[in-house]
Amino acid sequence: MRALLPEPRPDGRQSETARAVQRGVLRHLALAGMAGLPEFSLVSGRRADILAMGPKGEITIIEIKSSVTDFRTDAKWHEYRDFCDRLMFAVPVDFPVEILPEETGLFVADAFGAECLRPAPLHPLPPATRKALTLRFARAAAMRLAVLYDPDLLRAEM
Amino acid sequence: MRALLPEPRPDGRQSETARAVQRGVLRHLALAGMAGLPEFSLVSGRRADILAMGPKGEITIIEIKSSVTDFRTDAKWHEYRDFCDRLMFAVPVDFPVEILPEETGLFVADAFGAECLRPAPLHPLPPATRKALTLRFARAAAMRLAVLYDPDLLRAEM
Repeated sequence: MRALLPEPRPDGRQSETARAVQRGVLRHLALAGMAGLPEFSLVSGRRADILAMGPKGEITIIEIKSSVTDFRTDAKWHEYRDFCDRLMFAVPVDFPVEILPEETGLFVADAFGAECLRPAPLHPLPPATRKALTLRFARAAAMRLAVLYDPDLLRAEM
Repeated sequence: MRALLPEPRPDGRQSETARAVQRGVLRHLALAGMAGLPEFSLVSGRRADILAMGPKGEITIIEIKSSVTDFRTDAKWHEYRDFCDRLMFAVPVDFPVEILPEETGLFVADAFGAECLRPAPLHPLPPATRKALTLRFARAAAMRLAVLYDPDLLRAEM
């Protein structure tokens, strides 16, 4: 059953390990000039762990796998391909990376940074999908900032 | 001279009044489903007080004028038209709104909200400009969030 259900993950989406990997990857992305947004909800209903927008609008999805179980119970990771130009996994340093599919890119990360062990192959998005994703990303990021600046918005009807 | 220089404004960009109007407008926008980003730097070098992205990608720039002097010393406000579908002014409640140009929209605001006194006429952006602005907005918003989540990024070279 679990393999059919993307959430909740067996070890919890918010595990300490996953959080550390997320932080390290986000830092790596920012230093590389990529604007990464964590927990980005796609129109499909799935949620990308990180969606990153490059300077020319190139879109990378980074899926964090904090453990072998976390990877094995996600039978649908390939669906993220429809929403990005490049798909990467990001795992902690002790993850047995040989079990991961070779047709995705790979980050190994801790809380302080990440290293790209394998670049992701390019499968360019259709222009209409890119346009819709970019707008969705823009609005999601700005709305999150708005709530941080003005927490009362959370209590208002939105 | 001052009229030629967009910044610094005579009464200071960060005046209490301007901050209050900004907060009220951002709240109004969020409740209306518009994702507003304050202090958005345009490719022209100017900085829009607020750039808001609607659900269909429609772009509104809102220029805050905290006082008559603030308005009169900005001879270049019309340049914002090149970067939005709609241009609006936002002013505090005691502002003499009759001095503002009628060909822009108008918000009156305080720290708790805003009211639209005049909708802005539509002058649709060329698709390439909209595309570039949307990407710039997306990346700016996500980068601000990244720095809030991980303040160490401010000390890193970016």
